[in-house]
Amino acid sequence: MTSFVNGKVCAVVGAGGFLGTNLCLRLNELGAKVRAIGRRAAFPKALEQVEWRQGDISDQSVLANTLFDVDVVFHLANSNTPHASNFNKTIDVKTSLLPTLNLLEQCKEFNIGRIIFASSGGTVYGLPLTLPMAEDHPENPITSYGINKLASEKYFSLYERLHQVDYRIARLANPFGPFQTAEKNQGVIAAFAKKMLLDETIEIWGDGNVVRDFLYVSDAIEAMILLAGHTGGDRIFNIGSGLGHSLKDVLQALETNIGKTPQVQYRPGRVDDAPAVVLDISRAQTILRWRPEVDFQEGVGHTVEWLTKDLEI
Amino acid sequence: MTSFVNGKVCAVVGAGGFLGTNLCLRLNELGAKVRAIGRRAAFPKALEQVEWRQGDISDQSVLANTLFDVDVVFHLANSNTPHASNFNKTIDVKTSLLPTLNLLEQCKEFNIGRIIFASSGGTVYGLPLTLPMAEDHPENPITSYGINKLASEKYFSLYERLHQVDYRIARLANPFGPFQTAEKNQGVIAAFAKKMLLDETIEIWGDGNVVRDFLYVSDAIEAMILLAGHTGGDRIFNIGSGLGHSLKDVLQALETNIGKTPQVQYRPGRVDDAPAVVLDISRAQTILRWRPEVDFQEGVGHTVEWLTKDLEI
Repeated sequence: MTSFVNGKVCAVVGAGGFLGTNLCLRLNELGAKVRAIGRRAAFPKALEQVEWRQGDISDQSVLANTLFDVDVVFHLANSNTPHASNFNKTIDVKTSLLPTLNLLEQCKEFNIGRIIFASSGGTVYGLPLTLPMAEDHPENPITSYGINKLASEKYFSLYERLHQVDYRIARLANPFGPFQTAEKNQGVIAAFAKKMLLDETIEIWGDGNVVRDFLYVSDAIEAMILLAGHTGGDRIFNIGSGLGHSLKDVLQALETNIGKTPQVQYRPGRVDDAPAVVLDISRAQTILRWRPEVDFQEGVGHTVEWLTKDLEI
Repeated sequence: MTSFVNGKVCAVVGAGGFLGTNLCLRLNELGAKVRAIGRRAAFPKALEQVEWRQGDISDQSVLANTLFDVDVVFHLANSNTPHASNFNKTIDVKTSLLPTLNLLEQCKEFNIGRIIFASSGGTVYGLPLTLPMAEDHPENPITSYGINKLASEKYFSLYERLHQVDYRIARLANPFGPFQTAEKNQGVIAAFAKKMLLDETIEIWGDGNVVRDFLYVSDAIEAMILLAGHTGGDRIFNIGSGLGHSLKDVLQALETNIGKTPQVQYRPGRVDDAPAVVLDISRAQTILRWRPEVDFQEGVGHTVEWLTKDLEI
């Protein structure tokens, strides 16, 4: 079956990072015309087949030069990690919420057909009252990152009501896989794997029982592409594996795949880490007819394989 | 019984307006030492008994000079009305959310014992899924004003978790009463009453069946003062009458009180007006042992009386 994005002009904002690189490659593969906007391409060679535009979403002229004939915008830009966002909340508002508003305003001006916003299932809910957490779970973020993702979501909804901007939100769990480099402290699987491959000590905040919903990146990308063509009434979709794995499970899976025992140093837990995040993905499964295809062990295997190549070990 | 605020140093931020003037007067009456911070005192004579400090909450030095020995901060500052906020959302973030973050940061620095934040029961929920709306009703604002009130609330919660800042939130309904001047398009009762007293035509967006929860200002102030001394676990309280009155009811009450038939021009409805807002006030009633004392008709009567004096009619 031909994908919805085949022949469409797709702008990927925040294209230079982990998710962005994966998304651009897949869109290209599916026959979309890809315009990649980013501050920096972490893997320029991987993006050779797509049109690269240096810039960020605060930059009016880059957006104007890019959006004029675009069908779908994927907004993946992040300026911060959840933990780091708490150190300066004012800067976080200025570098995440305000640029998103700028993008929304431009999408309104250019009558963009559909915007997909990569929100964060790991941070918008905050402490879980029930597990797994469905889309209607109360939203009480414990990071500035989560607050600004949530406020951004509310602005998408407002722009639809006031200005007929069409959007879908992917509340992503913890995606992992190739092109995640752990350089900006994003991605615990990549970070742990890298340390193990380089025989370095892994630091864990807390006792290692913190649970996260890890989703292999190709599944996350597939869901976002399905959202581009979705025609129903729902706007917000949890995109995760629906399963919880602890940091200890991650260590175990890496040990199996790499064949080494990890060296771990445990540090005191952090106040801005929820003890558990597991997403209820029933809505995406039912409505998008999407389901995660790559299981945790297999995904960890691919990730280790990619990292080994990238690190030239 | 002596009030909790007796002998306490209370800073009122956004003190020059309708709510601020009422709050300062009442705090003063209850024996608090009041520091009023505002950009402009609309009624400087009314505030002669309290210490006035010209400034706004973005101004570091005014805050630092004021907060050093303050027990309770009341944050009432608003830069916008709900309807106007939708015209420039970026400016709204910059003039409402960012200043609130600045205030929070200063309250953290000065170890303020308690902050009371005047949030908006009329805008944080958006379109009602049930009526009356309790504090756990979904939060889907249809104005930028509501989004930034909501984001501010989330930041209060974050500052408690990360920095032990102690706070309570009053999600106020539509307060009305003396010192509401309708000059900035705030306060439909004051606006309609003024037009009627001056024999001008009242403009109504929609058919007049829009329902709001009108609360007489002395009741709103009483609730906020109770929140200053509250010791339980709840943080967010709806503060309203718990009753709905349509704009037509407002016209009717004014007609009864003023003894004139209003001249009304009906305009097309606005997309950023919820069709109905009525707050469920059970939590405040049960936990604060607070209840509205002044009923709608009586409150409208006081308001007309005050406006008549103010307009020197």
